[in-house]
Formats: sequence, C-alpha cells, structure tokens
Amino acid sequence: MTPPAEPTSRFLRAARRLPVDRTPVWLMRQAGRYMEEYQAIRAQHSMLEVIRTPELAAEVTLQPLRAFELDAAIIFADILPPLIGMGLDLDFIKGEGPQINNPLRTTYDIDMLATPPAAQTLGSTLEAIRLVTAELGPRDIPLIGFAGAPFTLASYAIEGGGSRNYERTKAMMYGEPAAWKRLMDKLVTVQADYLLEQAKAGASALQLFDSWAGALSKRDYIRYVQPYNTALFKMVARAGVPLINFSTKTSSYIEEVAACGGDVIGVDWQLPLEEVWGRIGYERAIQGNLDPVALLAPWRELRVRIDEVLSGAEGRPGHIFNLGHGILPTTPIENVRRLVDYVHEWGAV
Amino acid sequence: MTPPAEPTSRFLRAARRLPVDRTPVWLMRQAGRYMEEYQAIRAQHSMLEVIRTPELAAEVTLQPLRAFELDAAIIFADILPPLIGMGLDLDFIKGEGPQINNPLRTTYDIDMLATPPAAQTLGSTLEAIRLVTAELGPRDIPLIGFAGAPFTLASYAIEGGGSRNYERTKAMMYGEPAAWKRLMDKLVTVQADYLLEQAKAGASALQLFDSWAGALSKRDYIRYVQPYNTALFKMVARAGVPLINFSTKTSSYIEEVAACGGDVIGVDWQLPLEEVWGRIGYERAIQGNLDPVALLAPWRELRVRIDEVLSGAEGRPGHIFNLGHGILPTTPIENVRRLVDYVHEWGAV
Repeated sequence: MTPPAEPTSRFLRAARRLPVDRTPVWLMRQAGRYMEEYQAIRAQHSMLEVIRTPELAAEVTLQPLRAFELDAAIIFADILPPLIGMGLDLDFIKGEGPQINNPLRTTYDIDMLATPPAAQTLGSTLEAIRLVTAELGPRDIPLIGFAGAPFTLASYAIEGGGSRNYERTKAMMYGEPAAWKRLMDKLVTVQADYLLEQAKAGASALQLFDSWAGALSKRDYIRYVQPYNTALFKMVARAGVPLINFSTKTSSYIEEVAACGGDVIGVDWQLPLEEVWGRIGYERAIQGNLDPVALLAPWRELRVRIDEVLSGAEGRPGHIFNLGHGILPTTPIENVRRLVDYVHEWGAV
Repeated sequence: MTPPAEPTSRFLRAARRLPVDRTPVWLMRQAGRYMEEYQAIRAQHSMLEVIRTPELAAEVTLQPLRAFELDAAIIFADILPPLIGMGLDLDFIKGEGPQINNPLRTTYDIDMLATPPAAQTLGSTLEAIRLVTAELGPRDIPLIGFAGAPFTLASYAIEGGGSRNYERTKAMMYGEPAAWKRLMDKLVTVQADYLLEQAKAGASALQLFDSWAGALSKRDYIRYVQPYNTALFKMVARAGVPLINFSTKTSSYIEEVAACGGDVIGVDWQLPLEEVWGRIGYERAIQGNLDPVALLAPWRELRVRIDEVLSGAEGRPGHIFNLGHGILPTTPIENVRRLVDYVHEWGAV
C-alpha cells in the first residue's frame, strides 16, 4: 500500500495539521433551514424523503457550497436513520423534531435490534455521497461523512426523542449495565460499518457526533461511553481518512473525550479555543468553536467573537473554523457570508 | 455588634466549614412533585396560589422535613415571582412550565421595568418564612431562603419561558450591551433586597440559583454575568448568613463562578466532587453533587454513586450533601429516604 499523498485542500491539510494558506471553514448544519434554497426543497419533501432521494440529498448538500466559499461539504443526512434499519420506527414531526414510535423500554427490545449492513439500509446516503464527490472532487473540495455516536443514538432510541434529563437512558445504563453494553456494542457495529461505507463511497473525512454526551458526569462518561467510542474510532481508522470527534457540553472533561480517538477534536463554545486546545494537546487538530448564537449578533459583535476564536489558534497549524454546534435556523444569511469571507481574509497580508 | 455565636446545626456548621458529626443533607426541590403530600395540595391549588398563601407555602416547605431526616428546609417558592412585581405577566402552565406573556423584547421594555421592594410584592413568601422558622427554630433546623440569579431571571424574562439556545437573551446581550447592563442592574437591586428581606424574616442561609449560566461561554460569563453576581453577593453579605452560590453546566469554568462570591459553592454532577472542590479551593464549603437521575437507579447503583460523592469530601469539613440539580418528579420516595439515612450513617463508627 502506498502512503496517501499529502492533501491539497485547506480542510484536509488542517485536519492533518499541515500548514495552510488560510484557515479552512465549514459550518455544522450548513445545509439547513436558514437558507431559502433549502426551505424551497423542504416545502416539497419531508426530511426523510430528502435523505432517501440521492439527487435531493446531493442538491441540498451542494446549496451552501454555491452560496459561500466554504472549504468542505458535509453530506446531507441525519444521525438517526441508522436506527430505522435496526428496527426503530422513526418520524420527523414538523416543529417537534424526531420521534421514535417504538422506543427501547426493556432489555428484550435491545436484544431484538438488528445490525444490518449500511449498504442494505442506508444506500441512498451512500449514493448521495457518490453524486456529491463526483461534482466536488474535481474542485478539490472535500466531502465530510458522519454518524451519530453510540451514546447519542442510544439516548434517542431509549427516550423516543429529544430529552431534557435523559432519565430513561440513565436508568437503563445504571439499572441494566449488561443490556447497556449489548446496545452500545450493536451501535458500534452499525456505525463503524456505516462510516467505513461512507469513506468507500467517497467521503474524505468522517465526523462522529456525540451531541448529548455532556449530559453525563465524567465518571459515567468513562464507564459507559468511552470504551465504545474508543472501539468505534479504532474500527474506522482503517478508512484512512481524518476522523473528527465532536461533542458538546463536555469541556470540563474534554481530555477524556479526546482519549477516545479522532484526528480532529470538535469542541463547543464553552471554553476559549486556546484553553481547550491546550488541554487536548497540540498533537490533535481542533475544530470550532464559535457560539452559533453569535451569528444573530450585529456584525461588530460577531467580528469580535470570530477574532477571539481565530486568535486562539494563531501561529499553529491544525485549526478548522466552525461553530460549536449546528447553525440556527434564524441565522441571517448575510452574517454567514461575512463570517466565511472574514475567516479567509483574517491574517492575510 | 457582637460576633454571631458558632452555629450548632450540622448544615450551618458545614456551611462555615466547622466540624460536624455527620454530613448534612438536603435536596433541591425537596418539597415537590415526587411527594404525594405535595401533589395533594397542588391538586387543589395552583403553583402561584401555594406560593402566595403563607400557610400553604409553609405547609409544603415542612412536608419533606416530616418525611425525612433532612438537615435543612428551603422555603417553598419559585425564582420567577420577583419578575411579577417588576411588571411581567407570569403564569405557570400545567405540563409546560413557566410562561411570561409580555417578555422583554426591546430596550424600552427593559426601561419600563420597576424595582419594587420585596416587602411590597413578595410579602407572602416573607410571611411563609416567618411561619416556618417559628416551627423549625426550636428544633434547630435551619431554613434556606433563595432567589434566582440575574442572568437566569433575565433569560426567562427575555425568552418568555424555558429555552434551548437562549437566542433572544444572547442577542440582547450582544446587540444591546447598555440595555443588558440596565436590566442586570435592576435585577441585582430587586434580588439583593429580596434576599436581605428573607434573612430578616428568619432565613438562616440564602441560595442564589444561576441555573442557566452554563449556556454561556466562559468569556461571556465573565463579561455579562460575573460583575452582577459579584455585586449581588457583596450586597447580601451584610445579612450575616451563609450564602450559597449555585449554578449548573459551569464546571469547565467553575473558578470564575466561585470568584463571584458565596460561602458555599453549589455544583452539578459533571465533575467528581473532589476534582471540582480542588479547583474552587478548600477555603469554600461545597454543596452537591449527585446526579438527580441516580435516584431512579436500583439501590445498589445509587449507593455506589452516593459513596463516590461522600468519598470525595472525606476528611475535610465543609461538605453539604445535595443533588446537582432539583429532584425529579419521578423519584421513588423510598430512594429519598434511603439516601438521607445512608448519608447520615456514612462514616459513623
């Protein structure tokens, strides 16, 4: 096997901590409700329809790339569809978010979950990845594939939707530790395969979203999450593409999050970038970490906050500019444009 | 002025970091929905009726003291009623939580807010404090008074209720910093007066709840919250009773929270007690920090978690056992009883 050639795109270079001419920037949920073009498609098609129609998913993925000078695309999908193949009845309810009509309530429910290969159950997303990479490849713009981390998926599967306190999830974790392990093992199997298939289809980086891990204490994170995320990163490493380890509300124990793996650690906005990077260690790249709400502020204030993020990474390779969580639907489009351009102009001579 | 005599109750001794025979324990929201006696009263009376009827508020406050061997009572009230006196139209909607029908949307709305004295607008809670202390005083059980911190109150007043992203609050903070300062100053005025009046009415400790401060980055906490909480603690210090500085999701910058003041720092469950105490510094007492969801676990698991909290404070005065946030309505009453008794038995010879 020949070693991979040094990448040329800003995003992939930064992910490998190679020098870049400008800080690369992309935004979580950059294909989303804040864009009119996206809303026009969603007015005609449900969330699941868009995800399951490769041409639509590809189109939506490309929309923000046409509107802004972004350095990476992320495939339009959602973290939850893998649960459908496992046997859960998922719906996206307008205005309420995802809903699972047969949530996991017993250990028997967990044991009845299937672990089908992604090629069988998530083929439309893999096809959408092929369509997008065919279009973006010649322009040297990388496409990011992604999946939900086992804990975050388990919490949806057990609660049946979003949650405030994760009462059922933690009750399962504490009360049925053996069943918890079986559930997490199944999710690792399914998600590792899904991520590897995305890389095979053309994704040139992969992000794991552990969006709700911060609901756990550090001790519970170490006990109930870390072994599974670690196994997952290990399994996916053979894809040979950079792996991004993203979570939120975990900054008080970010060292434990980073210990799971990943070439790039994606962080939320709670701590200054330089502080959290110092704790993670500079042998990792970092992605983040503007508060998404800052994009609702007047430009003079937004700029101060972008400066703070960029200054925190100054003079050191390995920073990918992003928000600390997904862009909000109420974000003014003009602020997105100014943000992306400003990041690229910053530090230019 | 003669210096106050050394307190005799476990709770007040721990708050002053004096040696105690057993770790004192009380639970946030210990008067609440998990108790049948509470539900029976709430079946007949709305939340605001209970708060505004001193006899009912006193009765509800005393219910958990009759059921469990708790070391402190906390007056039954809510953090939001001070907003009513300031001009906001507050309702508690069954199953949905608090709702403010005329939320603050403009700087003019902020300027129209009144800052009435608590004796005028919150007299029923002050009277309830007098009733409870008359009953508990002879038994040497302290009563805790409390108030919401300015940021947490401001976020309710601006969002109109609970919030996920605090978009409007942050937009006001970032976009109208002068108005933000005026709003926070008014809240400091009202809350300092309210807390001082509670002490005058008989409360022997005061807790400030900054429940939502963790939505902010460390930098924004320092810019937009710390000056006001610091001013508030300074103003309330003259009450001469221990002050508890409570917040959640702030463990990544708990030093900055502690810097605002307070004799006791109330912490959530994200970090092990010994780790967060070490960062705060042992010249402060600490309150916490069991995950409320642990009370839904089987006893064998719950006990492990109680042991972890108690071990983290072992051999050092100044620990008040509590949850990391309010007790959940689904908590089995039997687990509360076992928890309280177990904390008192722990380390006994």
